[in-house]
Amino acid sequence: MNFSLLAHIRAQAPLVHNITNYVVMNNTANALLALGASPVMAHAVEEVEAMVRLSRALVINIGTLSPPWVHAMSAAAREAAGLGIPIVLDPVGCGATPYRTQTALNLIDLARPAVIRGNASEIRALARSAGNTKGVDSLHAPEEVLDDAIGLARALGCVVSVSGPTDIVVAGDRVARIDNGDPLMTRVTGMGCTASAVTGAFLAVEPEVFEAAIQAMAVMGVAGELAAAGANGPGSFQVRFLDALHGLREADLQQRARLTRKP
Amino acid sequence: MNFSLLAHIRAQAPLVHNITNYVVMNNTANALLALGASPVMAHAVEEVEAMVRLSRALVINIGTLSPPWVHAMSAAAREAAGLGIPIVLDPVGCGATPYRTQTALNLIDLARPAVIRGNASEIRALARSAGNTKGVDSLHAPEEVLDDAIGLARALGCVVSVSGPTDIVVAGDRVARIDNGDPLMTRVTGMGCTASAVTGAFLAVEPEVFEAAIQAMAVMGVAGELAAAGANGPGSFQVRFLDALHGLREADLQQRARLTRKP
Amino acid sequence: MNFSLLAHIRAQAPLVHNITNYVVMNNTANALLALGASPVMAHAVEEVEAMVRLSRALVINIGTLSPPWVHAMSAAAREAAGLGIPIVLDPVGCGATPYRTQTALNLIDLARPAVIRGNASEIRALARSAGNTKGVDSLHAPEEVLDDAIGLARALGCVVSVSGPTDIVVAGDRVARIDNGDPLMTRVTGMGCTASAVTGAFLAVEPEVFEAAIQAMAVMGVAGELAAAGANGPGSFQVRFLDALHGLREADLQQRARLTRKP
Repeated sequence: MNFSLLAHIRAQAPLVHNITNYVVMNNTANALLALGASPVMAHAVEEVEAMVRLSRALVINIGTLSPPWVHAMSAAAREAAGLGIPIVLDPVGCGATPYRTQTALNLIDLARPAVIRGNASEIRALARSAGNTKGVDSLHAPEEVLDDAIGLARALGCVVSVSGPTDIVVAGDRVARIDNGDPLMTRVTGMGCTASAVTGAFLAVEPEVFEAAIQAMAVMGVAGELAAAGANGPGSFQVRFLDALHGLREADLQQRARLTRKP
Repeated sequence: MNFSLLAHIRAQAPLVHNITNYVVMNNTANALLALGASPVMAHAVEEVEAMVRLSRALVINIGTLSPPWVHAMSAAAREAAGLGIPIVLDPVGCGATPYRTQTALNLIDLARPAVIRGNASEIRALARSAGNTKGVDSLHAPEEVLDDAIGLARALGCVVSVSGPTDIVVAGDRVARIDNGDPLMTRVTGMGCTASAVTGAFLAVEPEVFEAAIQAMAVMGVAGELAAAGANGPGSFQVRFLDALHGLREADLQQRARLTRKP
Repeated sequence: MNFSLLAHIRAQAPLVHNITNYVVMNNTANALLALGASPVMAHAVEEVEAMVRLSRALVINIGTLSPPWVHAMSAAAREAAGLGIPIVLDPVGCGATPYRTQTALNLIDLARPAVIRGNASEIRALARSAGNTKGVDSLHAPEEVLDDAIGLARALGCVVSVSGPTDIVVAGDRVARIDNGDPLMTRVTGMGCTASAVTGAFLAVEPEVFEAAIQAMAVMGVAGELAAAGANGPGSFQVRFLDALHGLREADLQQRARLTRKP
C-alpha cells in the first residue's frame, strides 16, 4: 500500500481546527505538530466561524461538554459544512450520559461528519445498540462492534473509524482493519482523541475520506508500536509516541502496517 | 503493613469522576490510568449527576474555579452524598482568595467529604487558623499544621490528609505520618491534585477511609521516590512518576513506605 | 553580560499570576516551577483581583478566549495597572480572527502592558500591518517584523518581544537580538506561551523591563538548545526542556547566549 499522505501533511502543514476537551488539548496539539500539521484551538462562538474559514479540517470532540461549547461546536460545524471543510466527530463518552449522546446526535444532524471516530462503546451507543459505556473506556472488542459500525456508516453515509485492539474503518460496503498498536496506548489519556485529530490532518490533505481515515489509524498504530518498544511505562510511552510521530517514515508504515481491506 | 489496595484498584479499574482544574486534568487522568483506575472528567451541570451515578468515587478540586463549575460541583456532591459515593475535596489555593475559601466551605456544608486533602496552607485556611496562602504552594511544614488537621477532622468528622515533606493523615484521634517523597515533587505542577485523585481511587475500592487515604499517600510518596532516583529534573521526573505508578508492586510499598501510626 | 536575574527568581520564588489558554496551562505552570518561580492560575472575575494583589506579575494570554475570560482579563489588568504590577500580554493568534485582534487591542487600551510578547504574525497584526496569521504559527522571519515591533513599541511606550529563529526585543530606540533556540521549539505547543510566562517571572524580580525581557528570551533560547541536544524528537525535547530550565546555571547563559544590542 501507498502511505504517501504523511508526506503531504508535512509538505502542506494544513491548519486543523480543534474544538476538543480540556483533558487532551495539549496532547492533540502536540501530536498534530509532531506529525507536521498546524493545530489551532478556538471555542468561542465569537470566533469559531472565522477560524473554520482559515482551516482545512475541523475536529469536534465532546469529551468535556458544556452548553457554550455545544453552541460553538454547532456554529463551527455549520460553517464547515457550508464550505465543504471536512469534519471529524469524536463522540467521547457517548452513551455514558444522555447529554453526551444527545449532543452527538444533534451535531450529526446539523452537519454530517466526514468521519465519526470513537471507541467501540461510543460507536455502539451512537448506533443505538446495547448498553451504557463505562466512562470513556472501551468495553467491547472491536469485532463485536463491526455490525454497529457498518450500520452507522450506512445510515449516515459517512466513514466510521473505531479504535481498539484491532482498529476498524468502515465506509459503505468497504471495511479495513488495522492490527497495530500496543496495550500501553490504553494506559495514557487522549490516544483516541489524538487519533481523531490525526484523522483531521489526513482529511485536510486527502479528499478520499476512507483512504485518509485508514492511513491516519495506521500512523497511530505504527507510531504506538514504535513508542512502546523500549518504553518503561505510560510516561515514557507518551514521550516516545511524540518522537515516533515526528520521526515516522513512509517505509516504517510500509513495513509495519498490518492492514487488511475488503473488498 | 498490608498494602493490598493497589491490587484491588488494578483488578477492579473503578471509575473515578473528577471535577478538577484545567491545569492538572491531563496529569490526574494519566495518573489514574497508570495506577490502574478508570478516570472520567465531566463538569456540565447537565450531566454531572448522571456521571456520578456511574462512578465509585468523586474528586472535587477547586484549582480553577468559576461559577458554572461551582454549580456543577455542588450538584455532583449532593448526588454523591445521596448515593453514599465517597467524595475527596481538594481545596486548592484555599485561603488565597475569599472566593476559594468560601466555595470550599460551602461544598463541605453541602456534602461532607470522606477526605479533605490539601497542603498545609490550605488545611490551615480551612481550619480558620492564621494567614493567607501563597498561591497554591505550601508555606508551612506539615508538623505545624497537625493541630489544624486534627481540629478540622474532628469538627467535620472526616479524614484530613495533608501533603508535605511528611504527609499527615488524621481521622479523629488517629494520626498517620508518611515520610516518603522527594523535593522534586514540589517542582512540578499537579502532584497535590494527583494525590487527591489517587486518594479517590483508593476510596473507590476500600470503605475504611483512613486506611484508603494512608495507602494512597504511601503510593504517592514511594512512586515519587522511585521516579526521582535517576531523574535529571522535573521533566524527566514527571515521565518517571507515571512509569513508577504503573510498575509499582506491593513489595515496593512494603520495603519503602516509612509509615508511623498512632494509636 | 550579567545574567543575574535567574538567581533572583530562584531566591525570591515570585508569585506569577497567569490568565492563559487551556492548551498550555500545564506547560507554563511547569516551566515557571522548573525555573524557580511560583505560578498561580485563576480566571474567575470573582477572584482575579484578589489574586493579582498577591502576585508580582500578571501574564495574560488570549490563546483560547471566550467572553467570561475576557471580562476577567480586563478586571485583572485594571487591578494590576492600578497597583503597578507589571503585565505581559501574549496576543496568541492575533490577526487570525477579528475577535482576537479586537480583544488584544482593548486590553492594551485598558492597561498598558510592560511587555507585549508574540510571534512575528501576531506582532505584525497588532501593528496593523499586512495580513492574517496562519493560526498560531509564525509566517514571517523576525527580521521582517522589526519595523512593526519598533512601531508598536514606540506607539505604546512598551517593550515588544518577538520570538522566532532570531528573537527580537525592542524598547524605544533600543533593539536586542537573541540568536539561540532550536527548530524543535516550533514542533511543540506552548513554547511561545512559555516565553511569555517566563518573561513574567523576570519582570517580577526586575523593574528594568527591557533588561528583564532580554534575559527571559536568553533563558528560553539557551534552555531550548540544551534540551534539543540529545532529544529524539518533540516528546523528549519537552522533557529535557523542563530539566534544562531547572538545571540552568548563570554560566550556561554567559557561555551560550548569542546576544547583540543596539545601541
